[in-house]
Amino acid sequence: MAYFENIKPIAYEGPDSKNPLAFKYYNPSEVVMGKTMEEHLRFAVAYWHTFTGTGADPFGEKNMVRPWDKYTGMDLAKARVEAAFEFFEKLSVPFFCFHDRDIAPEGETLAETNKNLDVIVSMIKEYMKTSKVRLLWNTANLFSHPRYVHGAATSCNADVFAYAAAQVKKSLEIAVELGAENFVFWGGREGYETLLNTDMKFELDNLARFLHMAVEYAKEIGFKGQFLIEPKPKEPTKHQYDFDAATTIAFLQHYGLKDYFKLNIEANHATLAGHTFEHELRVASIYGMLGSIDANQGDLLLGWDTDEFPTDLYMTTLAMYEILKAGGFTTGGINFDAKVRRGSFEPEDLFYAHIAGMDAYAIGLKVAAKLIEDKVIDRFIEERYSSYKSGIGLDIVTGKANFRTLEQYAMQNPGIKNRSGRQEVIKMLINEYLLNVK
Amino acid sequence: MAYFENIKPIAYEGPDSKNPLAFKYYNPSEVVMGKTMEEHLRFAVAYWHTFTGTGADPFGEKNMVRPWDKYTGMDLAKARVEAAFEFFEKLSVPFFCFHDRDIAPEGETLAETNKNLDVIVSMIKEYMKTSKVRLLWNTANLFSHPRYVHGAATSCNADVFAYAAAQVKKSLEIAVELGAENFVFWGGREGYETLLNTDMKFELDNLARFLHMAVEYAKEIGFKGQFLIEPKPKEPTKHQYDFDAATTIAFLQHYGLKDYFKLNIEANHATLAGHTFEHELRVASIYGMLGSIDANQGDLLLGWDTDEFPTDLYMTTLAMYEILKAGGFTTGGINFDAKVRRGSFEPEDLFYAHIAGMDAYAIGLKVAAKLIEDKVIDRFIEERYSSYKSGIGLDIVTGKANFRTLEQYAMQNPGIKNRSGRQEVIKMLINEYLLNVK
Amino acid sequence: MAYFENIKPIAYEGPDSKNPLAFKYYNPSEVVMGKTMEEHLRFAVAYWHTFTGTGADPFGEKNMVRPWDKYTGMDLAKARVEAAFEFFEKLSVPFFCFHDRDIAPEGETLAETNKNLDVIVSMIKEYMKTSKVRLLWNTANLFSHPRYVHGAATSCNADVFAYAAAQVKKSLEIAVELGAENFVFWGGREGYETLLNTDMKFELDNLARFLHMAVEYAKEIGFKGQFLIEPKPKEPTKHQYDFDAATTIAFLQHYGLKDYFKLNIEANHATLAGHTFEHELRVASIYGMLGSIDANQGDLLLGWDTDEFPTDLYMTTLAMYEILKAGGFTTGGINFDAKVRRGSFEPEDLFYAHIAGMDAYAIGLKVAAKLIEDKVIDRFIEERYSSYKSGIGLDIVTGKANFRTLEQYAMQNPGIKNRSGRQEVIKMLINEYLLNVK
Amino acid sequence: MAYFENIKPIAYEGPDSKNPLAFKYYNPSEVVMGKTMEEHLRFAVAYWHTFTGTGADPFGEKNMVRPWDKYTGMDLAKARVEAAFEFFEKLSVPFFCFHDRDIAPEGETLAETNKNLDVIVSMIKEYMKTSKVRLLWNTANLFSHPRYVHGAATSCNADVFAYAAAQVKKSLEIAVELGAENFVFWGGREGYETLLNTDMKFELDNLARFLHMAVEYAKEIGFKGQFLIEPKPKEPTKHQYDFDAATTIAFLQHYGLKDYFKLNIEANHATLAGHTFEHELRVASIYGMLGSIDANQGDLLLGWDTDEFPTDLYMTTLAMYEILKAGGFTTGGINFDAKVRRGSFEPEDLFYAHIAGMDAYAIGLKVAAKLIEDKVIDRFIEERYSSYKSGIGLDIVTGKANFRTLEQYAMQNPGIKNRSGRQEVIKMLINEYLLNVK
Repeated sequence: MAYFENIKPIAYEGPDSKNPLAFKYYNPSEVVMGKTMEEHLRFAVAYWHTFTGTGADPFGEKNMVRPWDKYTGMDLAKARVEAAFEFFEKLSVPFFCFHDRDIAPEGETLAETNKNLDVIVSMIKEYMKTSKVRLLWNTANLFSHPRYVHGAATSCNADVFAYAAAQVKKSLEIAVELGAENFVFWGGREGYETLLNTDMKFELDNLARFLHMAVEYAKEIGFKGQFLIEPKPKEPTKHQYDFDAATTIAFLQHYGLKDYFKLNIEANHATLAGHTFEHELRVASIYGMLGSIDANQGDLLLGWDTDEFPTDLYMTTLAMYEILKAGGFTTGGINFDAKVRRGSFEPEDLFYAHIAGMDAYAIGLKVAAKLIEDKVIDRFIEERYSSYKSGIGLDIVTGKANFRTLEQYAMQNPGIKNRSGRQEVIKMLINEYLLNVK
Repeated sequence: MAYFENIKPIAYEGPDSKNPLAFKYYNPSEVVMGKTMEEHLRFAVAYWHTFTGTGADPFGEKNMVRPWDKYTGMDLAKARVEAAFEFFEKLSVPFFCFHDRDIAPEGETLAETNKNLDVIVSMIKEYMKTSKVRLLWNTANLFSHPRYVHGAATSCNADVFAYAAAQVKKSLEIAVELGAENFVFWGGREGYETLLNTDMKFELDNLARFLHMAVEYAKEIGFKGQFLIEPKPKEPTKHQYDFDAATTIAFLQHYGLKDYFKLNIEANHATLAGHTFEHELRVASIYGMLGSIDANQGDLLLGWDTDEFPTDLYMTTLAMYEILKAGGFTTGGINFDAKVRRGSFEPEDLFYAHIAGMDAYAIGLKVAAKLIEDKVIDRFIEERYSSYKSGIGLDIVTGKANFRTLEQYAMQNPGIKNRSGRQEVIKMLINEYLLNVK
Repeated sequence: MAYFENIKPIAYEGPDSKNPLAFKYYNPSEVVMGKTMEEHLRFAVAYWHTFTGTGADPFGEKNMVRPWDKYTGMDLAKARVEAAFEFFEKLSVPFFCFHDRDIAPEGETLAETNKNLDVIVSMIKEYMKTSKVRLLWNTANLFSHPRYVHGAATSCNADVFAYAAAQVKKSLEIAVELGAENFVFWGGREGYETLLNTDMKFELDNLARFLHMAVEYAKEIGFKGQFLIEPKPKEPTKHQYDFDAATTIAFLQHYGLKDYFKLNIEANHATLAGHTFEHELRVASIYGMLGSIDANQGDLLLGWDTDEFPTDLYMTTLAMYEILKAGGFTTGGINFDAKVRRGSFEPEDLFYAHIAGMDAYAIGLKVAAKLIEDKVIDRFIEERYSSYKSGIGLDIVTGKANFRTLEQYAMQNPGIKNRSGRQEVIKMLINEYLLNVK
Repeated sequence: MAYFENIKPIAYEGPDSKNPLAFKYYNPSEVVMGKTMEEHLRFAVAYWHTFTGTGADPFGEKNMVRPWDKYTGMDLAKARVEAAFEFFEKLSVPFFCFHDRDIAPEGETLAETNKNLDVIVSMIKEYMKTSKVRLLWNTANLFSHPRYVHGAATSCNADVFAYAAAQVKKSLEIAVELGAENFVFWGGREGYETLLNTDMKFELDNLARFLHMAVEYAKEIGFKGQFLIEPKPKEPTKHQYDFDAATTIAFLQHYGLKDYFKLNIEANHATLAGHTFEHELRVASIYGMLGSIDANQGDLLLGWDTDEFPTDLYMTTLAMYEILKAGGFTTGGINFDAKVRRGSFEPEDLFYAHIAGMDAYAIGLKVAAKLIEDKVIDRFIEERYSSYKSGIGLDIVTGKANFRTLEQYAMQNPGIKNRSGRQEVIKMLINEYLLNVK
C-alpha cells in the first residue's frame, strides 16, 4: 500500500522550478569537485523524527497526522517500515538511521523485545535487498525508558548498566546484520541533574568501561563500521558528560579510547554548547575525529534543542566548507536529525522539510566548493600567516627558537606591524559567492 | 604615607559584630578540619582590579576615586606598590597576584619596559622582606597592547609570537625573583574572531610550542612554582581556545603538556562557558589538575564577565566542598579576580568588597567542612552507588563482566528497581547547614 | 482510602529538628509583622504537577510512581481528588490551583467533557465542605490539545477561538461554583513560531476581544475573583505574546483592559525572559498590578522552564521583600508551580519538595520582614535620594523646574559630587540577615 | 586635506563587479516599488563608531589607525569633521548621526563645553551648505562621564538630573540649528545595577518628568523633528529601563508620553533582549511607533553588544520586509550603529564595512520588495486567517459574538480542522527569493 499517495518521486528540476515538491539544487548525479552530489552529501533520513515522532511537546499532546497511525503494536512497527521505504524512494535519499526502540516496541521481557526487533530487522533487510537505501548508522535508545532515569552506562544502579549493555550488544548485532556504516553513541542520560548526589568520577570510569566492552564486542562479531560519539551539552539532563567535541575528546584520550571513536557533530548541539556548528566541525577535524553530522538547526534565541530542518544557507555553506576541507565524508553522512515544526503536522510537510534541507545542503556544497576552487579563503590565510614561512617565524615552527633567541629577536625588532584581519570583507565575499550560486 | 588613612587593620569580630569594616566569619587562626582558615583559604588580592583598575567600561570613562591617582608614570607605579602593601596588611591577606603590566608601565622599547619592571620588582621585593605577604602568582599581560590584536602565541604574526615569548621570559624571571608559588597563563587573545580568517590548527600548534618553550625556560632558570592555565570561553575574543576545563585538558593531553600544567578555575568564566563553578572544579579535580581559583561571581542574566566580588554563599559553599574533597590547595589559593562595581567607586569600597568576599568564603569553608564531617553527601552517595560493591556491579568495576555476561544477567533479571535521587532533600539539607553555620 | 499511608501530618518542629518530614521554619500560626505566616504566604499546591504530572520529558517516558495510577479515566480523576485532599491536609496547605483538564479528562464531545468536569467539580465541592482548603485559582488549559496547535484566542482558525471561549466560559462557572479567589490566563500557545506566517496585529486584536468577552461574562455570572495574566516569554512557542510583565502591561493598557487584570508572576518565567524574579515583581508592583505568584525556580544555565521547587533563599527573600513592600497578597498567594525532578519519582518526594519550598518561603518571609523592620534598605534608599527633598531636586519632583531653570542651575553648580552605591555592602548585609534568621 | 587619499568615490558597479570598493547592489538611483533606493534606505553614518571610536575593549587598548589621530583637543574635533564629510561624500551616504560628545570635547565647565560645541556645530553647518548630507538625528551622551555613574534623568542625585537637562537642552538647540530630522534618547545609564539600592518607581517618575520637559522645550524652540527612544535591555547597566519595544511602550503609555515618541530599533539590542530584529520592528509597527533603525548585527552566541556591521541577508531582508509593510521610513532611516571589528583597524576597513552593510540592506530591500510584489507571504496569511472573513469568525471580529454564542457554536461544531502552518515551505521560499535577487 502507499502512505504518500499524492506524492510523486522527487526529482531535480533546477533553480527556476516553481514546484515546491521538487529539488532545485540537489541533483544527485551532478558532479562537484570530482564527486557526485550524492557521494558528497550522503543524506540520511532519521527514523525517529519522521516515522515515530508524534508532535508532542512538554505542553502539548501528539498531533502529527500520520497515515500509519491507524495501526498499533507490531502492526504499527511494520507499517512504519513500509512507509519509510516508500518515503526513501520518493525522496531519492541514500541512507537512513534509527534507534532500536524506533523500529520495534519493547515487549514484556528483554527476550520478547529482542524478538520484536528480529521481526522488524528481517523485514527491513528484505526491503533493503530491492532498495538502494543503506543504513548510515543505528544506535540504542538508552534514555527514554524509566529504567534509565539516572543514566545507562553511568547509572548508579548496576542492573541498569547490565541492561544497557544487553541493549547495545543487540544493536551491534543488528548493525552487522544490516551492514551499518557506523554505530552511534548518544548519551542522553549520561550526565547529572546535580553534582550533589553524583560521583562523577565513578560514572565516567563506568562510561569508559562500557565503551571498551562495546569496542571489544564489535571486534568479536566482526562489526567493521565506525564508532561515533555524539556530543550534546544538556537536555534531557542538566549536564551531559559528552558536552561538546573538546570534552568528548578529553575523555576519549584520557581513557585510551581515542583510536576507536570519531565524532558525530550536530548543529543544534553545537549552538546549545555555545559554539557555531563550523567550530565543532573544525575541532573534530583538527583532532582527526570528524566522522558524521546530524543536520538540523537551532533557534539561537531559544535554549532547547529545537531540531529544525536546516535552511540557513550560511550554516550549510560553512559546514560543507569544513567537511570538504577535512576531505569529505568516508563512512559518515548528513543525517537529518530534524523534525517538522509542530504546526507542520501534515504528511506533505515531511517532504517539504526534507527538500528544504537537502536543497540547503546542496547549495552549501556548491558555494563551499566554489570558495575552495577559487581559493578565496585559502589565499587570504596563506598570506596572513606568511611570516611563519621564513626567518624567526620559520625558526618557531621548526623548533629552532626558544625564549632566549626570541627575546633577542624582540629586543632588536624595531617595530611590529600587524595587518587588518578584514573580517567584513570576508563576510561580503561569502554573500557574493552565495548570491552567485548556480 | 598612608593611602587608606581612615581604615584600621581589619580584625575578626565574630558573627554578632555590627561593624561593617570587620570580619564576622574569617578568622585567620580559627582551625577547621585540622588547618587554620588562613592555611585553607590562602586569599590573594588581584593587583589589576584593586590598584590599577579605573572603572572604565565600554560606555563609560574612568571613574574610580583612588588616592594614588595624583601621580603618573613610574611615580604612579611606585605609589601603587605602597598602597598595595598598606592594603594587604590592613586586610591581613596573605597573598597577591599581578600581570607584568599592572605593576609597571611600558616604555618606548622592550628594554626600557623591562627596566621599569626591574625598578618596581626591586621595590616589591624590599616590601616583601618586612611583610608576611607572598606572591601567589604572577603572569604576563599578552592581550591589552595593540600588538596582540590577533593573539600572542597564536598571532598570525611571528614578530608578535617573539615579543610574547620575551615578555613571558621576563615574567618567569620575576616569578623566580619574588618566589611566586605559581605562574598563570590566561590567553586573553588566544582565540579567534571568525574561523573564516583563522588557521586554527596552526594556531593551536603554535600555542603548544609556546608553552613547551615556557616549560623549558622555567626549568632552565629553576622556577619551582606550578604552571597554571586559566580557561575562559569568550571575551575579549569571540572564541577563546582555552574554552573550559575539558577543552584545556584535551589540548594539554594532545600536545604532551598535561604533566606540566594545572588549571586556575574562575567562577565567572565557568558560568560564561555554561557550567557551574563547582562543575569546573570537579572536572579539574577528576583529571588531577585542580590548581588554584579565581574567586568572583558573574550575573547569570548577563553575558559578559562581570567579575563581581563573591557573596553568593551557595557558590562559596559548593566551591569549598570541591576544594576540600580534592585535598585542599597546595600551591594554589583564592585570588579575588573581582572588581568593585562601577557605582562603588570610593576607596572604602575596596575594603568592603574584600571583606564581603573573604567572609563569604570563610562561611563556605565552614559549611562545606561540616557537610563533610557529618558525611551528609558522602553517605548518600555511598548508599546510592552500593550496587557496584558486589555481584554484577562488582564484576563490572573489576573488569570481569563483558557484553555477553551482562546480557545473560539482564535476561534473567526479573525487574530493575531504581531509587529516588532525592535532589530536593539534598537542597533542603544544604539550606539547613548554611543557616546553622556558626 | 489513603494514598500516602506512611506520611503523618506535617507539623512545625523548629529549626533544630532533624526530621526531614517536618517544617523547620513554616509555622502557620507564627506572627510576622502583624499577620500569621499562613495569612502572609497563602500557599497553594498545583494540581497539574503534583497529581497529574507523569515525569515524561522530551526524551523520556512517564516514570513517576503514583499510587493512584492503577486507575484510568474518570476513576483516575476521582482517585486524584481523594489523593489531593489527603495531601492538602497532611501538608496543612490552605489553597490549591488547577486547569480544567487536570481534574477531568476530555470526553468525545464538548458536552461530555463538561459533564466529566461537573462530576469532579461536585466531588471537589463536597470535599471542600469539610476541608479548610480553598481554591486560590483555576484556569482553562488552552494549549495541550492538538486543536490549539496554532493558538487559542490567537488561533488563525475561528472554530478554535470559539472552542476556547466555550472552555473558559465553563471554567469561569467552575470558579464561581468553587469560590475561586482568582482566575488565571496563561497563553501557552498564544504567540508565534515564525512571524512569516503570522498576522501578529490581528492575533493581538483577537486576544483582546477574547479577554473583553471573559470580563463581560464574569460580570454576568457574578464572579468576584481577580483576573490574572501570567507572563512567559517562550516555550512552548518560539515567542509568547505575554512575554514579561512590561509587555503584558503594554498590551492591557493599549486594549483598555488594564483595570480588569493583575499579573501572576512566575519565577522561572522571569528568568527565561532575562529578568530576576524580584524585577518582575517590582515592575508589576509599580504599575499596581501585582496579583499572585507562581513559586518555583529555574536553572539559569538551562534555557527551558525547569519548574524546580524553590529552595534558593536569596530568591525567596527578595521575592518576599517585594511582596511585603507591595502590601502583601490580597486575593493572591504562593502557588507551587513546581515539579519534583524526574529523578525524584517516589511519592514521598512530593512531600519533601513541598516542605523544602514552604520552608524556603517561610525563611524568605522572616528575613525580608527583619530587613523591613530594621529599615536596612529603606534607610539607605532614603539617604541616597535625599537630594530630591529640597532645592533643585524638590523643584524637579514638584514640577517647578524646566530645561531653562535646570540649565541655569547646572551652569552655576561648581561640582557634582556622587556617592558610592555600596552594592557590595548591601549584599554583605543580606547575607548577615539570612544567616541570623531564627 | 584628504584623510582617505587612496579611496575614490564609491560607485555602483553591479552584481558582477569584482571591485571590493564598489557597491554591487546599492544603486542610489535605482527604483524599487516606486521610490529610489536612496529614498527607501536613508543610510546614515554613526559619527561615534567611525570617527571617534578607538578600538579599545575591556581587555585592550586603543588600536584603530586613524589619520586624524595626530591631532588633539579641538584640533582633533575639527579634523574629524573634515574626515567625516570626505567620508560621507565618497560613500554617497545621505545622512549622519552624532552624540554631542562625539563631535566636541568637554571643557572645564559646562559653559566652555557648550562653546566647544558651538565651534564645531558652526563648522558642520558650513560643510552642510555645500554637501548633500543631512543630519538624520543627534542626541546627548548622558552615559560616558563619571557624573552619570548612577544614571542621568534617573540618577539619585538631583544635580545630575539638572546637568543632563542642560545637556539635552543644548542638543535640542543643535538639532534645530542643523535641521535634524529626529532626536534620539538612549538611556545608557537609565537603569539599575541592583534593585537593592534602587527606588525604581521614583526613577521612572523622574525619567517621565525629564522627557516631558524635553517635549515642552522642543515645542518652545520650534524643533519639528521626531523624538525617538532607543530600547536596550542591558549593558552598560545590569537592567536598562527601556528594555525592549514593549517595555518602552508600556512606559510611554503610562506616563502620557506616547504621542510624542517613536522608537529607534537596533538589531543587536533586539537580540540581547531575546527577540529577533523583525519582532521588535513588528511590535513597534503594531503600536504605530516604528521610527528609525540602528543597523548592525550581534553574535547570538555572545552576550554583549558587538555592534557588527550588518551582513546577514536574512536579517536585512526580514527587517526591510517589516519596514516596507509599515509604509517605509518617514523621518527615520538606517543608521549604521556598527563598528569595524577590532582586528579591522585600517582606515580602508571603514569603507569595506559600510559597503558590506549598505549592499546587504540593498539586497534586503530588493528581496523584500519582490516578496511583497509577488504577495508570497500576504497570500499565505490571507488564506490562513480566512475563517474570520465570514460566519462565526466574522461575528468575533465585528463584536457580535460573546461567550454564550461561542459556546453554542462550539457545542454544535462537529470537528475542528486545522491546517499546517508550512513553516519549512516559507523558509524554502525565502531562500529562493534570496538566491534569485538581481
